[in-house]
Formats: sequence, structure tokens, C-alpha cells
Amino acid sequence: MTTTPTNGISVTTGPILGSRRVYRTNAAGTLRVPLREIALHPTAGELPVTVYDTSGPYSDPAVAIDIARGLPCPRDAWTMARGDVEEIAGRVVRAEDNGNAAAAALAPVFPAQRRPLRAKPGHSITQMEYARRGIVTAEMEYVAIRENLCRDTARKNARDGEDFGAAIPDIVTPEFVRDEVARGRAIIPANVNHGELEPMAIGRNFLVKINANIGNSAVTSAIANEVDKMVWAIRWGADTVMDLSTGRNIHNIREWIIRNAPVPIGTVPIYQALEKVGGVAEELSWEVYRDTLIEQAEQGVDYFTVHAGVRLPWIPLTADRVTGIVSRGGSIMAKWCLSHHRESFLYEHFDEICQIMRAYDVSFSLGDGLRPGSIADANDAAQFAELETLGELTKVAWRHGVQVMIEGPGHVPMHKIKANMDKQLAVCGEAPFYTLGPLTTDIAPGYDHITSAIGAAMIGWFGTAMLCYVTPKEHLGLPNRDDVKQGVIAYKIAAHAADLAKGHPAAQARDDAVSRARFEFRWEDQFNLGLDPETARAYHDATLPKEAHKTAHFCSMCGPKFCSMKITQDIRTQVKEEQAKGMAEMREKFRASGGEIYLPR
Amino acid sequence: MTTTPTNGISVTTGPILGSRRVYRTNAAGTLRVPLREIALHPTAGELPVTVYDTSGPYSDPAVAIDIARGLPCPRDAWTMARGDVEEIAGRVVRAEDNGNAAAAALAPVFPAQRRPLRAKPGHSITQMEYARRGIVTAEMEYVAIRENLCRDTARKNARDGEDFGAAIPDIVTPEFVRDEVARGRAIIPANVNHGELEPMAIGRNFLVKINANIGNSAVTSAIANEVDKMVWAIRWGADTVMDLSTGRNIHNIREWIIRNAPVPIGTVPIYQALEKVGGVAEELSWEVYRDTLIEQAEQGVDYFTVHAGVRLPWIPLTADRVTGIVSRGGSIMAKWCLSHHRESFLYEHFDEICQIMRAYDVSFSLGDGLRPGSIADANDAAQFAELETLGELTKVAWRHGVQVMIEGPGHVPMHKIKANMDKQLAVCGEAPFYTLGPLTTDIAPGYDHITSAIGAAMIGWFGTAMLCYVTPKEHLGLPNRDDVKQGVIAYKIAAHAADLAKGHPAAQARDDAVSRARFEFRWEDQFNLGLDPETARAYHDATLPKEAHKTAHFCSMCGPKFCSMKITQDIRTQVKEEQAKGMAEMREKFRASGGEIYLPR
Repeated sequence: MTTTPTNGISVTTGPILGSRRVYRTNAAGTLRVPLREIALHPTAGELPVTVYDTSGPYSDPAVAIDIARGLPCPRDAWTMARGDVEEIAGRVVRAEDNGNAAAAALAPVFPAQRRPLRAKPGHSITQMEYARRGIVTAEMEYVAIRENLCRDTARKNARDGEDFGAAIPDIVTPEFVRDEVARGRAIIPANVNHGELEPMAIGRNFLVKINANIGNSAVTSAIANEVDKMVWAIRWGADTVMDLSTGRNIHNIREWIIRNAPVPIGTVPIYQALEKVGGVAEELSWEVYRDTLIEQAEQGVDYFTVHAGVRLPWIPLTADRVTGIVSRGGSIMAKWCLSHHRESFLYEHFDEICQIMRAYDVSFSLGDGLRPGSIADANDAAQFAELETLGELTKVAWRHGVQVMIEGPGHVPMHKIKANMDKQLAVCGEAPFYTLGPLTTDIAPGYDHITSAIGAAMIGWFGTAMLCYVTPKEHLGLPNRDDVKQGVIAYKIAAHAADLAKGHPAAQARDDAVSRARFEFRWEDQFNLGLDPETARAYHDATLPKEAHKTAHFCSMCGPKFCSMKITQDIRTQVKEEQAKGMAEMREKFRASGGEIYLPR
Repeated sequence: MTTTPTNGISVTTGPILGSRRVYRTNAAGTLRVPLREIALHPTAGELPVTVYDTSGPYSDPAVAIDIARGLPCPRDAWTMARGDVEEIAGRVVRAEDNGNAAAAALAPVFPAQRRPLRAKPGHSITQMEYARRGIVTAEMEYVAIRENLCRDTARKNARDGEDFGAAIPDIVTPEFVRDEVARGRAIIPANVNHGELEPMAIGRNFLVKINANIGNSAVTSAIANEVDKMVWAIRWGADTVMDLSTGRNIHNIREWIIRNAPVPIGTVPIYQALEKVGGVAEELSWEVYRDTLIEQAEQGVDYFTVHAGVRLPWIPLTADRVTGIVSRGGSIMAKWCLSHHRESFLYEHFDEICQIMRAYDVSFSLGDGLRPGSIADANDAAQFAELETLGELTKVAWRHGVQVMIEGPGHVPMHKIKANMDKQLAVCGEAPFYTLGPLTTDIAPGYDHITSAIGAAMIGWFGTAMLCYVTPKEHLGLPNRDDVKQGVIAYKIAAHAADLAKGHPAAQARDDAVSRARFEFRWEDQFNLGLDPETARAYHDATLPKEAHKTAHFCSMCGPKFCSMKITQDIRTQVKEEQAKGMAEMREKFRASGGEIYLPR
């Protein structure tokens, strides 16, 4: 169902088909942690299956959604209770923040105003700093409950997987979350100005996460589209959303997105900084960039992509590449560096960047501005030189108590993927890796959600903590609503395949539930347990639309006579009936027939 | 474009957007081997890119297509020239061959009649037998030219890959093909009754191939659909097609398909045998099965899936599975074995099966009737017991001179995929592996082309020779035309990603051509070099439809200011212009500015 509250912005609300949003609480009763419960048909004789839920209050019919007011802010109470932040007047919004859009073209200002929070002087407020002091924050406890997926009540599977040296616990405790954050092996992107956030963790020892990119460009897209795409992306499973808007109205669009986002929002501040200087890379300066960081930190952005690893000496290493520099931020910084014949101001001012981000608990996503944009350029000197710089910067950020993840490629053929993960682990001290795909071939424009889901599943298995989605429109155009969904589903597949292969203790429960439903012809359960119940149902109903077919012991793939699952069930039934007649009689019968059903091997 | 010749059957003909079907000939001028040539924009300054072409005469405007006459039969001359076959009267078609369809429901008989060919008594006619005698057949020479993809004229890439012990040559010679076929490491499925065939090889040291399944079921689909789907599947890249029809009219549908198929056609004869006994598995007999083998061999089927590894003692090993037996053929045979408390008649009559297939050169696809149908059942005792039996049967078939490939799973999480390949190589003497996916998770009904493309790419890399596609409708219903295309494209991606990772010497040329086109904003070239030019173009044009945008130095993803490729080009242009001014002046300028553009690392 869809609601249209104000300003012409409509978003999709209501439960996902066949499930409902439920909440788990902590012992103290202070937290309400969302999960999605998929009820099964009574004949299943099974408990409902509980899965991770990123969809936010939008899928809860009990919550009244009003886009113009934004979501409720449960985190504000936790933040204030810690006593380490204060309200500030905040930076005044300037015309340049929205690209000097003329009145007619200016996106509406978000109606509900708020005053930004910032660390009190001398106070440490990042999740990493709390963790290092041994404090379990509400965010950490929330994450622990969320990550467990009710595994205390779920069917147990034997641990089965190859985790390449990860340290995935049987049960995630708040203390485990704290320890992972303290040592930098996980982050909880959670700006104190993002009270609407439902906290989540990104780290190798947690469920593999996915990010969806949205955002307008100078060519197309508008505010309503972006809020709608954000809500749509999290409905299907996006764990974080990056707003990559680059046209005018960046400031106002972002405010609408953050105020309505229950997931961490990431940005690339250099995009807005470039707009502020009229799109001329050479005109960029530390002062404009610094101003943009503060502007966005006050709004509540949870993580910043910062391309501080694009150092002047690395740029020539891209000279012989087939596709040069394919990161927007990377190319902008390269142009600045070459034009001025100077080292990157991001690299030179990295300590100051840390100080700013630390005051709001904005996490780093250290950008891979020199990632390969083609199979030919994978794992080259430019890419790995930058990665080593990112390792160096990770340690600087950690000294400041700032949380860090590291961005990774890109376009990489399968046989070169593992080297990326191994090198990242080695040089970045196990800071979470966050990769774009990688795409495993260049030859399928229009299908790069698939070329990259292959690489994403593999690198997720090897240890990548978050996978940045790629949509079918990659290389071709700005994704629309359906592209966003296709990208999210492809990446949910990749992330889950990775969790399975790593031996995540709660992962296989869902696969098994689907498979039991399949075997028992509980069609509705099979649809509802899948990543996209609506599509699964529609595909089934395309040939067998009647309600009676929802319990039929066959589908149109093979028809009744050739349904292997039906035949197998018939065999089992036959065996059971025979067993019921009594083993003695059975034995006689089998002996008379000259054989045994179940011969020893 | 589309043609509608007769009987209401229309198929898609004409060249694929931006390319044309070309032919290479051998030195003797006796062979015309098809390839697809993609011309590039004149500004590229590059030779056309030549890719493998499975589309058959349908994409050649010079060939008049008449579905009711079938394709021309160039192979007949080669077969007859060898002097080892003779025309026979052939088996008379019976009503049961078409499921006793009543006159009104009977699919039309294929109009052009032919007399079947069979080996003369005492003559050996399989490609394997010729190869063992040191003979290079026309089929082998054809395959060699086809596999090379004009690599003699293409840009050279350094060999780069991890091939896990494969032996991929720099150039495929006819003698190499012969040697691979002789030792059973590759097959050329080529029934002497399939003169329409454009021969191809399936083997670990050749390009990774893909198969598309078509076929009606008792519930849906008709003859025109299946011929259309076959032509459609090969247009997008299916290397072989399996006709898995299970309803009535099986015989007649198959005749229409084979007579119009330039690719090898595979079947599962037990399906038709079961129809002949009214769908009651217990009623199956060796005699009915034998009759069906001969019927289909005379029609020209190139490979048979035979589930002879489903032995009575292995069936109980499936008792505790989550999804039991999921292969249709496997479950049928299991039911037969249990009902009769007898060993499988396929296993017991395996020598006779070999003798029949040998007389027409039908290849084995030894079926994995006990493949896992869920993540829970992967790599279990039942699966591997059957695989060992398939290894035993491979050696029997080879003794008879019959070509063999081995079918593989199924549903397998990523960390268990390589064990499948390793075990198959070990127990089946390097006979080609032919896997269905594998699907790497069970949780995405509606998207199993993606869950399985991940596993397919990986197992292809590890050494699987052919990947059987999975469509989005898997588990839900019979695929339609669009599903077929989605499945084929996903599997072309997987196969090509595998070729790249194996270091196939001709594979990366296409990726590099796409990437250069991308970097140089040759949009048309990027579309045309991709697997699906129509979709790539449509996606681009969704936001930038004008012709002028086909040479624009940006797209709607990022817009002009943020296009990294444009910026990188600007940088390079700038550097070149500066270089043109003279290095001396440059050096001075750089020194004055206190830096160097290209610093040594």
C-alpha cells in the first residue's frame, strides 16, 4: 500500500507480503529492536521464521507515516542520556548549499527544523571511543539483538562453512559488539544528529550488509523520487543508503532523506563541495570542503566517503590504464592535484577531517578513488598504492577515535578477487571492507547487477563486510525505482550466499525453511520466505493462478506426473505405510520379493 | 525481425544489433564456420571484434528460413564421405510416441521426411572412435576454427588466470581437438542424424558452454512456443538446447526442434518412456526405454541424459534429506527400483545402452538423479555415491567408444562448490562436467538465475565445461520467452567470467573492447559489444534518448560535471597538450610550481 502525505511525496508502506514487523526488547525493556516475522502455514508445524528487517517503521501499520515530519527519533534519548553532546546553533544554510537554485527550481525546505548536536568540548562521543572505555552503548546492545535473528529459538544447524579466519560467534552479545567496535573490526555508523536511525553494525563477524545508492544527477531526478527510492530500497533489504546527489538542491534533498531514514546515510561530500565552486575542480579548496563536512555532519550524515588516498604520486600510475580513473571523487581530486601540482588537500588535512567527524560520530568510508574500472585495470599498481595509503589513514583515524571502513573495487575477474581481500585485511588492520561488486566481466552492460553479484558473493565470503549494490543501469543511466529493487535483491542474494558460505550460525535456517516449504508444497510459505514474495507469487500464478494451485502437489514446470518432489513424497508415504503394517510382515514380504528396500552400503 | 513461415510458427531472424554473421573457412575451403563480427565506430581505429556465434543461419539475412523444411544439412556430406553409415528404414512412429494424442490434439507431423542413418555393421562412427584412430574429422576442424575466435588477428593479451590444472592452448588446432576427444576430456555431441548441426565442443580446455532447457509440460506450452524458444535461446548464446518436453506430442515437437536446430539437442529419454506407459513409473521396462532410445537416436538427438547412477543401494541415503530426490528422472527411477525391489534397469543394461548410442554417435550426459535440491542436502552421501557410480559408468562408455559428460548439482553453498569439481575430476577421469548452476542459496525464488549464476561462474572457473542455465521461473513455473533470455544472458555472464578467470587467451579481448568503448564514449560500440545490445541501448535511452547523446561525453548516471571518464580524459588531454609545448618548458613550469606531474614512486 502507498501513502501520499505531503509535497507530492509518496512512499510504499505496509507489511511485506506474508510477514509482519515485530520487536524484541532487551532485559531492561529500554530497546525495541525490529525484526520481520514470517508466519508459516499451520500444516508446517514450525515456528515463524525471523529475519533481519531494514524496512523501518514504514512496514509497521501501527506507525503513522508523515514524510513532512520525519520518523520518530528514539536515539535522541540515548544520546542525551550519555551527557556528552550539546545543542548548537549550527551553520546557516546558504544558497550555494543548494547549488544556487533559483526560487522556482528550489526544492522545498524540510518543514520540521531541529538544532544540531555536537560533542561537548573535551568529550568523546564516537561508538569507538565508548567501546574503548568499556562502555556498552544502547546502539551496541541494539545491534546485538538485531544480529542474532532470534537464533536462541530457531532450529539449530551445525556450524558449517569456511570463514577464512573470521571470528563469528554462536551468539552475538553486546560485549562482543563492543569489542569488535573497540578494535576497529566493526563500525556502527551513527551520527548523533541521526536520531531516526535503527543502529546496525558493519563488520566481518556480523551479517554481510548491503548498500544502495540513490541520488539525483544534473540530468534527471527530483526530491520525491529520491525519498521514495530510499524507502523502497530499505523495504527490499538495503542496510545503508548513500545519497550521491550531484545536481542542485543537494542540501534540501538530503535533509528530506535523513529525516525519513531509519538506516545509516552515507554521502560523498566532495560532490557538494564541487557544486559550491560551480563544478570547476581546480576551484576546490580545503575551506569549501571543510564547510561542507560540517554542513553534512550537522544534518546527520552517518558516513562520509573521503578520497584521501588519491595522492599526487599515485595519479601517474593510472596513465596506462584502459579506463583511467572511474571514481567520480577520485577523478575530481586527481584533476585538482594535477592542476595545482600539489598533494591532495584531503590527505594533507586528514587530521582536521578526523577532528570534525569525531565531534558528531561520522564514520569514514575511505574512498577508493583509484579503483579499477575495467577487467584490464584490476589489481594494478595504482589501486594497491592507494589501498596502502588507506591503511595508513585508517590508523590515523583510529588514533582520533573515528570509526573507519575501507572502500574496494570495482571491476575484478574472479581469480583476482581474493588478493583484494587479503591485501585489505593485511594493510588496513581488519577495518571493515566495503566493496562495489566487484564486476567479474565488462561485457554485459544492462546486466551488471549480475556480473557484480558474482564478485560480491565471493568477496563477501572472503570477508567483505558490506557490499555496495550495482543496478542493471550501471554504466548506462540513473537507476529508477525498479532498478533499485533489482540491485537490492541481487545483493541480498550475494550477501546471504556469503553468510552461508562463512558458516554464519543463523543463515541456513531460512534456506532450510524455504526448502521444507518447497518439499511439502506449501507454496505460500515458499513465496513468503523468499526475498521477494510478490514476484515469486506472480511467477507461479502466471501459469497456475487458481487458489487451489497454492496447495497443489506440482507446478507448471514439470506437471503432476513428473514432479520429483511429489514422487519422492509418494515413495516416503509408501515406505511409511508399509512400516505401519508391522516390521515382521514387511520383512517377510521383502524377503519373498528377493530384496530389501534399504540395503546397507 | 520476425518471419512467419508456416503452421503458425514464427521465429526471430536477422542480425543481432550492430553485428553480422561472418564465416571463416579452412585451408581446403571445405568448411564455413560461423562467427559474429561486431563492427566498431571508425573513430575507434580498431578491427572489428569477433565473438562466438551460436545463433545459426537465423541471424544471416542471406539464408531463407523455412521452419517447415528445416535448416540445410552441411554435415550430411561429411558423414557420408566417411563411408561408415548407411540409411535404414527406421522405426515406425506409433501413437504412443505422441502420448496417444487424439487427432484434434495431435501436433502436426514435420513435413519433410528423411531416412535415418546408422553405423554400418562393424563400423565405428563416434567422434571419440575417429579421434582414437588419429582421424581429424570435419567436425573437429570446424570446432578448432570456431573456438579460436580469430585470435590470430585479435589484440594479444598476456595470459592471465588461474586454471586449476586445465590445459588451455594458445591456439586451438584440429589436432588438439582430436586429442581432447580421444582421451574423453572433451565431447562433440553430433548425432549422424543431425545434419543441421554446427559442431561444437564441450570440454574443460575449450570455452565454457551453456545449455538452455526448453520443452512443454502437461500443463502448458505448445509446439510453436518450443521452436520459437529454441531459436530465441541460441540467438542470445545457448550452445546446446535440451528438449525436456513431458506432455503429449513429444515425438512431433522434437522433430520440429531438431530439424531447425543448429546446436546439439539433448533429451532425457525416460520422460518419453514414462509417457508411453501412461505415467506410471512402476510400468517402465527396459524394452520401452530401449525403444525410446532408438526412436530418439534416429531423430537425431545429440545427447541423452541417462540416470543410470541412481542405484537401488543409494536411494536410502536420501531418506533424511530435506528435499529428497529433486531430479525428475532420478525420482522416477527411484520409484521404479523401490517398487520392484530391484536394481535399476538403466544400470543393469548399461552396456546395451552404450551399443545403441554408439551406432548413431549419441553422447552420454550421465544424469545426477540424486543431486541436492537444497543447501541442506549439498555434498551428501547420496550425491557422492552416485557420482562414484557415474565415474564407473564413464569408463564403461569409453570402452564402447561413446562420448560422455557428467551432470552435476544443483544447490550448493559457495564453500562446497570446489569439492564437487575436485571429486568429479578425480572419479570421472576428466570427462566434461555439466552442472545445473549450482544455486548458492535457497531463499530467492524468482531470482534463481542470479543465485545460480554465482555458483555457475565459480564452478566454471574451477573446470566445469558446460553450465545448464536456470531461469527466473525455476521452482515456480515453466519459463516463457523472456525467462529464457534472462537465463541465457545470466549464464553467458557466468561462462565468460569463468573463461576470464581461467585465463582463456581470447576471452579478455571483448572486455577490453567494451572498456575502451566506454572510456572513449563510443556508446554504440559499448552497446553492440555487450551481450544484449538492445537492452543496453534501451536503458541508456530511457533518460538520454537523443542521437546526439550517443556521442555525449557523459550519461545520466553522473551528468557531465561528475563523469569521471570525462575528467580523466580532460586530464590526459591537458597533459598531452602540455607535452606538445615541449618537455623543456614543461620541466621548467613544473619545477617552478614545486612539483612534478609524474613523480617516481
